Amino acid sequence: MSEINSVGIVAQQTAHFNQPLTLKSGDVLPAFDLIYETYGTLNADKTNAVLICHALSGTHHVAGKYSPEDKNPGWWDNLIGPGKPLDTNKFFVIGVNNLGGCHGSTGPASINPVTNKPFGASFPVVTVEDWVNSQALLADYLGINTFAAVVGGSLGGMQTLQWSIAYPERIKHALVIASAPNLTAQNMAFNEVARQAIITDPEFHGGDYYAHNVVPRRGLRIARMLGHITYLSDDAMGAKFGRKLKDTIKYSFDVEFEMESYLRYQADKFAGEFDANTYIRMTRALDYFDPATEFDGDLSAALRKVTAKFLVISFTSDWRFSPERSREIVKALLDNELPVKYAEVTAAHGHDAFLMPDEHYHAILRSYLSKVEV
Amino acid sequence: MSEINSVGIVAQQTAHFNQPLTLKSGDVLPAFDLIYETYGTLNADKTNAVLICHALSGTHHVAGKYSPEDKNPGWWDNLIGPGKPLDTNKFFVIGVNNLGGCHGSTGPASINPVTNKPFGASFPVVTVEDWVNSQALLADYLGINTFAAVVGGSLGGMQTLQWSIAYPERIKHALVIASAPNLTAQNMAFNEVARQAIITDPEFHGGDYYAHNVVPRRGLRIARMLGHITYLSDDAMGAKFGRKLKDTIKYSFDVEFEMESYLRYQADKFAGEFDANTYIRMTRALDYFDPATEFDGDLSAALRKVTAKFLVISFTSDWRFSPERSREIVKALLDNELPVKYAEVTAAHGHDAFLMPDEHYHAILRSYLSKVEV
Repeated sequence: MSEINSVGIVAQQTAHFNQPLTLKSGDVLPAFDLIYETYGTLNADKTNAVLICHALSGTHHVAGKYSPEDKNPGWWDNLIGPGKPLDTNKFFVIGVNNLGGCHGSTGPASINPVTNKPFGASFPVVTVEDWVNSQALLADYLGINTFAAVVGGSLGGMQTLQWSIAYPERIKHALVIASAPNLTAQNMAFNEVARQAIITDPEFHGGDYYAHNVVPRRGLRIARMLGHITYLSDDAMGAKFGRKLKDTIKYSFDVEFEMESYLRYQADKFAGEFDANTYIRMTRALDYFDPATEFDGDLSAALRKVTAKFLVISFTSDWRFSPERSREIVKALLDNELPVKYAEVTAAHGHDAFLMPDEHYHAILRSYLSKVEV
Repeated sequence: MSEINSVGIVAQQTAHFNQPLTLKSGDVLPAFDLIYETYGTLNADKTNAVLICHALSGTHHVAGKYSPEDKNPGWWDNLIGPGKPLDTNKFFVIGVNNLGGCHGSTGPASINPVTNKPFGASFPVVTVEDWVNSQALLADYLGINTFAAVVGGSLGGMQTLQWSIAYPERIKHALVIASAPNLTAQNMAFNEVARQAIITDPEFHGGDYYAHNVVPRRGLRIARMLGHITYLSDDAMGAKFGRKLKDTIKYSFDVEFEMESYLRYQADKFAGEFDANTYIRMTRALDYFDPATEFDGDLSAALRKVTAKFLVISFTSDWRFSPERSREIVKALLDNELPVKYAEVTAAHGHDAFLMPDEHYHAILRSYLSKVEV
C-alpha cells in the first residue's frame, strides 16, 4: 500500500544563487546554494506548487526514497504521494533545506569561498524571515509566482506564517501545524540549555571545530535528549517506556530503565549526523521569531496584510506548542476577518504528533487540500 | 515581622554513627555522619518532634540564620519558627542532610577512612529507603521514638511516604507536599539528561574529579538549568521573564533574553556550590523510588501497613509532580481506609510553589499542624 502510494525514487537538486542575500541581522551572504527535492509535476500555469517548510532537524528530503533499498523514506512520506492527503497527482510539492542547514544548503559546514575553509563560527545567524526570503528566491528560480499552499509543522509552521506576512500575494493557503506565533519563555529556556550544552563542550572550539577534526558530540547528545523529551508527551513516554527496567536494578549510573536506553540511542545517532552549528542557529531562529514584536506585541496587527486562507492544526498532548498557542494565531486571523479553519486533534504523541499518520489528522488535511484550487 | 518569628541564630550538629548501615543496593557503609539542626525544644515526653526531609538540592539548614549578618536563612524559614505554620513554640523541628549529600553528612566528597581519600565514584548509590533508615537511627540517637510528624516536599515527600511505610509505629502524621508515589518516565528522562551532562563532562573523571582538583562545572550547569525549567511553570517563567530582551538583539549566542541571563546565573552559582556526585545520586534515588514495585505496581497494597494520618498537598501549576500524582497517593490511602486530607492549591509557581509562602498553602499547613497532638 505504502509502496503503491509512494512518490518513488527521488533525487535532490541544487539551486545556486549568485546574488547577495541581506539577512535580518544585517549580515550579507554574497552567494548561496539551496538544496531541494520535488514530487509531482508542475502544471502549465504553475499554480499547483506546494512548499514544505521543515522544522528544527528536518531536511529537504520530505518524501520518497533515494534507492529501492533505502529504508528511510522522507520525513513526511506518510503525508505526501499519489493518493495521499497531500496528493502528488494534483500538487507539485517542493522540499527545501533551509539556509544554515547541514544537509546540502549553504551552512556553517560549507566552504567559505573567500577563505576556502568551512564558515564555522563566521556563518551568520539566520532567521525565519531570512529562510522565507531565500525560499521566495527558490520559487523565482523554479518559475513559481504563487504557491497553492505553504505547509509546515512546528518551526515549519512559523515559516508558513511568515510567508503569509511577507509575501501575501504569493501564497493562497497557509497550513500551520503544531506551531505558535512565538516561543514561550519555557521553550526558549530549553533551547538555551541545548545551546549551552553545545557551546560549553570543549570540542566546540567556539564553533570552529571543523578545523580540529572533532565535533561537540557531548553537547549534541544532551541537546537531542532534551529535544526528544519535549517532542513527546509525558503520557506518550509513559505508554512507550513507563518505568520499565532494561534488566534487574544494578544501582548504577549505567542504563537502568528502557527510557534511558532509548534516549542514549537517539542521542548517539543524532550526534553522529547533525551539525552543532546548525543546531544552535535553528534554535536561535525559533527564539527570535515573533512577528508581533514590530507591532507592540499585537499579533492581529502583524497579520493585517495577510490574504491567505488558513488551516491551523494543534494536538491536545503537545506541550511544546500547545493548542492554546495555535488558538492565538486563529484569533489574530479572525481579528482580520481572514478565512481560517482550526482543528484541535486528540492525539497522545505530543509535539511529534504532527509527523504521525494519525487518521483524524490526515483526514483533515486530505479534506482541506482536496478543496484547494489549482 | 520575619525577624520576630525567626528561630534566630542556629548551629549545625553532627551525629556520628559507628555502626554499619546496609544499603538497599547491598553495599555497606561501615560508619557515617549525619549533620542536622534543631529548632524549638523537645518536650519531656519526646512527643513533639517533627522531621523535615529535604529535596534534591536541599540541606539540613531548614530555618534560622548562622549569624546576625547572614542574608540566607534556611530554605523553609518562611514555614518554620515561633508562631509560624510549623510552630517551634509547639514542635521540636529537625532538619537533616541526607546520606550522600554534600553539606556535611557522609557523602562522595567525604574522606573514606580506608583509603584516606574522598570516596568519589566508590560512594554507593543511596535510596529513599536508605535515607529513611539512617534518619531512624538519628531519631534513636536523639531519643525520639515517635515523630509527631514527618514533613517533606518533592523528593522530601517521598521520604515522608517511605517513613509511613517502613516505620508505621514511629510516625503519627505524614505531610506529603508536591510529591508523587514514583517518577513518571518524563521526570526520569530529565534526570537522565542531567546525569549524562555531568557524567560526559571531561572533568567528571568517572566521579573521581576530586583527585584532579577540578569539578564537572559544565555538566552541573546544564543539570541546574534544566532543573530550574522543571521547577517553574511555563506561566511562571512567562510572567517572570516572558520574551524580554536583555538589550537590543545582537543576533548572537550570547545572552539575548533576560531568561537566559537568569538561567546562566543560577547555573554558575550552583556549579560553584554543589557536588556533582551528590547530584547524580539524588536523581537516582528519585528514579528508583517506587514502593509499589514489590506489590506488582499496586500502591494500595504497598501502603497496607501504614497507620499515619496524612496531609497531601499539590499545586495546580506543578508539572513535575502534578496534582494527578498526589491524588494517586490519596486514592491508595483511602483504599486502606486511612485518614487523609488533600488540598490542591491554586498556585502559579509550578513545583517551586512548595517553597513559597503562599497564603492559602500556609493556612492549610497551619490549620493541620495546630490540630496535631503532642
